[in-house]
Amino acid sequence: MSESIELQPAEVRITALGGLGEIGLNMMVLESGTDLLLIDCGLMFPEAYMLGIDLVLPDISAIRHRVKDIRALVLTHGHEDHIGAIPYLLPELGFPPIYGTGLTLGLLRNKLEEHDLLDRVELRRVSLPEEVSLGPFAVEFFRVTHSIVDGAGLAIRTPAGLIVHTGDFKFDNTPVDGNRTDMARLAGYGDQGVLLLLSDSTNVERPGMTLSERVVGDALAEILPRCPHLVMVSTFSSNIHRVQQAVDAAVACGRKVLLNGRSMVANCTVARQLGYLRIPDATLIDLRDLRDLPRQEVMVITTGSQAEPLSALMRIAMADHKQLELEPGDTVILSSKFIPGNEKAISNLINHLYRRGAEVYYETTSEIHVSGHAGQEELKLMLALTRPRYFVPIHGEYRHLVRHAQLARTMGVAADYVRVLENGQPLVVGPNGLRREARVDSGRVLVDGKGVGDVGAMELRDRRHLANHGLVMAILGVNQKSGEIVYGPEIFTRGFIPEENSAAYLEEMRAVILQVFQEHSLEAVTEWEELRVEVRKALRRLFNRTIKRRPLIVPVIMEL
Amino acid sequence: MSESIELQPAEVRITALGGLGEIGLNMMVLESGTDLLLIDCGLMFPEAYMLGIDLVLPDISAIRHRVKDIRALVLTHGHEDHIGAIPYLLPELGFPPIYGTGLTLGLLRNKLEEHDLLDRVELRRVSLPEEVSLGPFAVEFFRVTHSIVDGAGLAIRTPAGLIVHTGDFKFDNTPVDGNRTDMARLAGYGDQGVLLLLSDSTNVERPGMTLSERVVGDALAEILPRCPHLVMVSTFSSNIHRVQQAVDAAVACGRKVLLNGRSMVANCTVARQLGYLRIPDATLIDLRDLRDLPRQEVMVITTGSQAEPLSALMRIAMADHKQLELEPGDTVILSSKFIPGNEKAISNLINHLYRRGAEVYYETTSEIHVSGHAGQEELKLMLALTRPRYFVPIHGEYRHLVRHAQLARTMGVAADYVRVLENGQPLVVGPNGLRREARVDSGRVLVDGKGVGDVGAMELRDRRHLANHGLVMAILGVNQKSGEIVYGPEIFTRGFIPEENSAAYLEEMRAVILQVFQEHSLEAVTEWEELRVEVRKALRRLFNRTIKRRPLIVPVIMEL
Repeated sequence: MSESIELQPAEVRITALGGLGEIGLNMMVLESGTDLLLIDCGLMFPEAYMLGIDLVLPDISAIRHRVKDIRALVLTHGHEDHIGAIPYLLPELGFPPIYGTGLTLGLLRNKLEEHDLLDRVELRRVSLPEEVSLGPFAVEFFRVTHSIVDGAGLAIRTPAGLIVHTGDFKFDNTPVDGNRTDMARLAGYGDQGVLLLLSDSTNVERPGMTLSERVVGDALAEILPRCPHLVMVSTFSSNIHRVQQAVDAAVACGRKVLLNGRSMVANCTVARQLGYLRIPDATLIDLRDLRDLPRQEVMVITTGSQAEPLSALMRIAMADHKQLELEPGDTVILSSKFIPGNEKAISNLINHLYRRGAEVYYETTSEIHVSGHAGQEELKLMLALTRPRYFVPIHGEYRHLVRHAQLARTMGVAADYVRVLENGQPLVVGPNGLRREARVDSGRVLVDGKGVGDVGAMELRDRRHLANHGLVMAILGVNQKSGEIVYGPEIFTRGFIPEENSAAYLEEMRAVILQVFQEHSLEAVTEWEELRVEVRKALRRLFNRTIKRRPLIVPVIMEL
Repeated sequence: MSESIELQPAEVRITALGGLGEIGLNMMVLESGTDLLLIDCGLMFPEAYMLGIDLVLPDISAIRHRVKDIRALVLTHGHEDHIGAIPYLLPELGFPPIYGTGLTLGLLRNKLEEHDLLDRVELRRVSLPEEVSLGPFAVEFFRVTHSIVDGAGLAIRTPAGLIVHTGDFKFDNTPVDGNRTDMARLAGYGDQGVLLLLSDSTNVERPGMTLSERVVGDALAEILPRCPHLVMVSTFSSNIHRVQQAVDAAVACGRKVLLNGRSMVANCTVARQLGYLRIPDATLIDLRDLRDLPRQEVMVITTGSQAEPLSALMRIAMADHKQLELEPGDTVILSSKFIPGNEKAISNLINHLYRRGAEVYYETTSEIHVSGHAGQEELKLMLALTRPRYFVPIHGEYRHLVRHAQLARTMGVAADYVRVLENGQPLVVGPNGLRREARVDSGRVLVDGKGVGDVGAMELRDRRHLANHGLVMAILGVNQKSGEIVYGPEIFTRGFIPEENSAAYLEEMRAVILQVFQEHSLEAVTEWEELRVEVRKALRRLFNRTIKRRPLIVPVIMEL
């Protein structure tokens, strides 16, 4: 951003470093004068092609040289795709003060503790509503309902005018804690005049209104009395209201509750401490109590709803869990979305649960999950309340952003005042209208084990190649002086063909390599690299002719 | 099956070799006396964990020693998951005669030609309805509607009684060709008394009735007049009725039609020759005509609806297709299902189509696809018409089979007369009721390139390991006599860390290896294997301590 044109006093620049053109990785930069305000700092779970990657972080190189200008990092809510990258990026961001609501900071605190960073950062808790002054920005946090409690939207007064950032939201009129999205305040912003609305696009493909979270409680209350044995409810551990509703349903049926899964226990502990989750002590049991209780008096609330391979629920489904097992007559309720990319794994999980003899309730067949994001009518309501001059859709894949832009135009926002932005595309908003600037660096930084950013496109390409075709290594030693082959060719393969019953084929590979050596006058060879290339080519031709496979071929020629 | 108990004269054994507990790979064996009848012989597309695999075939080892007893292979319809394995397995099955309807055999003929097998097999075309006598079995083919024309169910008269196999079906009352599922005949079987019903479970999770194929034609007719420029329709090339409806919609709007994609051209050619698809010659254009026509007068009908990486549609979306490109204002209609496992790729395809400026219609947002499988009310209708004594759900994952079994019980089939079977689980049906027998071999044979069955669990495990963590090779040469290291240790990595900026880390690996050699008195080493294991362990410890990754470690110790 150092190359960008200097801002006029009444201009503001917004640049997304993540979350525009993708689900997850949400991070946005607001700029006024020389001051920066960061909104959210989320991670993304790796896509299928990112082989072996644990996590994905936003690339912050565009602001790395500006850390001293960062006034604050403000958080809309506590989901991983909004706070998950913080422990990794905080040092590079120069430890700015972080503002968020109680649960958001409670969940963040756990993360920072794990990364041993808690004492290096200032966490400032805000109420809803509350305004904080951050350099040239006055940020008012206002309440929105979402699939996590204590969600906020942001009304940001800037020298250019009022910018409303919805965070992730829905208009739930009967939320579990009674705290609705603050419509009065949104209408108020509309009356004051909203310069720019940045609004959540996740569910723009869904007509109508998203159902209230309360619906899930009703469904649980209806299903539970019909369950003859153990009941297991699986959901995201951050969905505290969902957990609350499951607990309430359990208590109503005289069941005890076992919380299962590391993050379920951790998040529920934080939520109970902060008063967001109410579970009577007498209701909670642990694994040791399980044997002493009749199965029909227990509800297990567990993580693993996305069929993560090592999750407790997957192990239970595979009859591979030490303390928890399913018996015929038990019931499993998957109270969660099939997250895109996980459908096959979840479907496989459900099949295994049925194999254990359990009855299974899941999204396709029952009302035991509702989304946390606004459907089309709610997105229209947001536009109707705020009546913005300019509109930029956020939080969504490219098609969601385009469709949300179309929707805003049907709601009367002037066609040219609606802009679809992608990550790294700065937009300046000011008295002279909208101005796109040259793109800045943005992208995805891959985390593999303890390595952050060292696995790049090249390594992923090699992994993909190895994944699909396996590996063939050909090793041979050549006498430096005579050029004679004094070792090998020795062939090793992995993931290619079973070595044990392919002696003849290995022999054929050796013959091909020896032929390369015969055909090349070794005296004329100045570069062994040249021979390596020839060996690779010859083997590739052989494989193509015979078995039609393309393993990664690694020829090693040692000068001895 | 040779170990199985001999059948009584009035008994029949059914054994699925595929399709029970999975979608695809459909193949079933019927047995009476010493005679075998095969129903379908389909393939499956590889699941995500089957890295590098092209196709999956059913394992037929259970019947390999019985090929002389195979009376025939009968086919219900021409989808890949019902006929796709035939070219691979036909030689092992001893080239039995194959019975099927016109289009089914037409599509099969193309495959057999490609595999150079056409002159070795007898294809016998049946009409609908038509009865053929095959050893102890009299098989009546009756018409069912499905997402491919010329679909059949089978009414098989056996010494034990009448067995009805639905094939894949729905009750479409307004099919495009006017040929409905033969309800009169189904009711007739019910009157005669059906011993056993085998019924398609694919859509058992869907309440109600599946919409008629005609709905898609209506949707196309509604969308097309609103499309200002080029229209591209993507669908499965085997869905001839869908293609017919797209062509009809194009003709009605004065558009010419370009068929695009190898299988689209091939299947439409067969279907036109056999009279199943009517396209006026004047309507068809080819790529060369494209430039001379205004874009608003063209419809492209193309494959690639599953976002296959090399498909024409994906390349068009990535602006990487030589002859076809999209311009702002063009329309793309994805008239097909998001097949489980492909959701992410299709979603990515749609994003790219939007990036090209096209308007996109897809399953989530429009009525431009309907399923070919019966919903719950149709499954009930099938049970109501046939009123079977015994019921076995077929064609579905395990949960579909369980839910279809539950549904059959609600329809009055006696609880104990409903059986959920899995592949390889024989069931004997006879005057004394149902009898499960010991399981026989069944499973999945993987095809990779030209290799059939040589890639097994071991190779897949290695591929998975390589995919997720990459590879580290450590090569060193040791003097056979002195035990001195005379070459290396040389380190090669792939998909692990970028070699170019990790000199220090490579040095650390070398040091660790040298230390292993120092710690082991080389005189005492009788087996180099022992040292290899130690080198692997030492490197694993190093990686675990430093970078927290688990590459495949291949130590190579050469005796020189």
